[in-house]
Amino acid sequence: MRRALKLARRGEGWTSPNPMVGAVVVRGETVVGEGWHEKAGGPHAEVNAIRRAGEAARGATLYVTLEPCNHTGRTPPCTWAVLEAGIQRVVAGMKDPNPRVQGGGAAFLEAHGLRVDLGVMERECRLLNQPFIKHVTQGLPYVTLKTASTLDGRIASRTGDARWVTNERSRRFVHVLRHRLDAVLVGVGTALADDPLLTARLGRRPCRQPIRIVLDSKLRLPLSSRLAGTARQVPLWIACAETASPEKEARLRDLGAEVIRLNRSDRGLDLHQLLEGMGRRAVTSVLVEGGARVTGSFLDAEVADEAFWFFAPKILGDPGGVPAVSGTPRERMLDAVRLHNVKTHRFGQDVMVHGRFREELY
Amino acid sequence: MRRALKLARRGEGWTSPNPMVGAVVVRGETVVGEGWHEKAGGPHAEVNAIRRAGEAARGATLYVTLEPCNHTGRTPPCTWAVLEAGIQRVVAGMKDPNPRVQGGGAAFLEAHGLRVDLGVMERECRLLNQPFIKHVTQGLPYVTLKTASTLDGRIASRTGDARWVTNERSRRFVHVLRHRLDAVLVGVGTALADDPLLTARLGRRPCRQPIRIVLDSKLRLPLSSRLAGTARQVPLWIACAETASPEKEARLRDLGAEVIRLNRSDRGLDLHQLLEGMGRRAVTSVLVEGGARVTGSFLDAEVADEAFWFFAPKILGDPGGVPAVSGTPRERMLDAVRLHNVKTHRFGQDVMVHGRFREELY
Repeated sequence: MRRALKLARRGEGWTSPNPMVGAVVVRGETVVGEGWHEKAGGPHAEVNAIRRAGEAARGATLYVTLEPCNHTGRTPPCTWAVLEAGIQRVVAGMKDPNPRVQGGGAAFLEAHGLRVDLGVMERECRLLNQPFIKHVTQGLPYVTLKTASTLDGRIASRTGDARWVTNERSRRFVHVLRHRLDAVLVGVGTALADDPLLTARLGRRPCRQPIRIVLDSKLRLPLSSRLAGTARQVPLWIACAETASPEKEARLRDLGAEVIRLNRSDRGLDLHQLLEGMGRRAVTSVLVEGGARVTGSFLDAEVADEAFWFFAPKILGDPGGVPAVSGTPRERMLDAVRLHNVKTHRFGQDVMVHGRFREELY
Repeated sequence: MRRALKLARRGEGWTSPNPMVGAVVVRGETVVGEGWHEKAGGPHAEVNAIRRAGEAARGATLYVTLEPCNHTGRTPPCTWAVLEAGIQRVVAGMKDPNPRVQGGGAAFLEAHGLRVDLGVMERECRLLNQPFIKHVTQGLPYVTLKTASTLDGRIASRTGDARWVTNERSRRFVHVLRHRLDAVLVGVGTALADDPLLTARLGRRPCRQPIRIVLDSKLRLPLSSRLAGTARQVPLWIACAETASPEKEARLRDLGAEVIRLNRSDRGLDLHQLLEGMGRRAVTSVLVEGGARVTGSFLDAEVADEAFWFFAPKILGDPGGVPAVSGTPRERMLDAVRLHNVKTHRFGQDVMVHGRFREELY
């Protein structure tokens, strides 16, 4: 199963809205076939592994990180392939979390005489696919916050200068995150200040571009911005209030951007409405890259799932510097939002802190 | 030498204003004596190690983290003990950094026919005694900043609530730091807000109390504060401006506090003058525990040597929360003060970042 998990991760960034899945066919002590779900629309992990195994699959055990599917999507059900190959036993990391198909694959295989074990290394298998599981069970994208600040919590100087807070290795990892997740979101303040592209750039490694989303109540994003200028190459969604200018909307649409009208909540645009819309359109995950007010509004709305917090080993020391988060007033230290399962990672001299806002997994 | 370094650290907190020193007497492949400088005024490491070795020291090699002294202080010169014991070879981690005695011990021993090697694991030996080396070469205490904040850089909520930011394990380590260093310093704002004791408390382990220093230009520290109330048990120095009330000074002195008058610099009290005075009085190190303005003024005055930055895994998200550092305006991100040689350490779910403001060692 450990091997299957490792294989699964090779699909990182390519499988959405499907999960990452890895599979290993074992006969006695020997691995006779391996596979993973390589990209959405392509064959599932089990099928790849079974094909590699060929005749050796007969009587073998299939280890797979997720219960084999029993329904026809873009590919035929994996359960059929398992059956046809003559697999005798299936060990799956977790049940299919899809409420419409739960238990289907395992039940089908057991009814055909196979031994099926579910829930082996379940925690690891769940961790692998948190965005997929949240999306399939709740219809909402998994929300990842990303912040890059000095040790004293400043993401830019008082003049807005933010080039650069973190080092190159940290910034490269942000591109990995953009490749992994389905969408990237910033506030229009960040878009105006930095004129970012928000694309994923992994050097010569192939990568998938995230949908770029800008929270922009009044449609202030300039037509000359790099975001607007590349809207035909990489999807650009602009979320604005009902009251934003229809003329500006039309001109942004002309450039290829999509404009989404949202209700207003107490503080800015209605994030729940935005996330529901994203979920309906098969966006399973989004990387929220700030600035301070956007990060604050995701925290205040309690819709964030995890955070990557990058620290550069420097101290701005200026109380007028731009803070990392600008949300609602909180009177007591106890009101602070907690992160759980904290992990740290080093990128050269930078320090990254990762944690999840919920203690339980999806 | 690795063993000698380990022994040296057993003196942590007890040797100031002397260095920590460890020594091992080796004969052939066998360790025949070990020792360390256990406390200021007590015998030096070499003497302890040689005594343990007894007759076995004759013809043996002495590994010691610091060049043996050749002058009579509170104890006779170690070089005599080395000579008398019949040691044949001395391997020392670093030269005595004291400009008045440099080379003295090694030269004396070589003149008496011993082989002396200096500079073995020199970096580690220097790292061990940065406060001692700075103090002996510059006459100034080594300055350690300590901050405890949320991930978004808040040390308290907008109402001043700071109980607690970090967890118990982090706070326990702060007590270890107070034990290690000669003095602890806070601003009067922190003293008023938290009414702290600033003592070192290590449970049942014995510990040394630091001198407690309050930066308090106008002598606002209440006579009823816990600091003032314990001034007879643990030294309390209050640094104020020339203009502060002589009456309040007299009353604080009555309680056992010492009042130090300082000149004003551009921003608050003259820290250089304070540090020079501390150095003259054999204070080799000071832990600056904030608050924001005090941390800022030490950064702005460029007198800090290292920082311990504790992060609790929580986000306050309130731009009105108390920032970790409140110093002078800095226009560009490039103006941020850098930390070098960054190390991270975990205290449960808290993350500690440590770094030094200078790239070179003293």
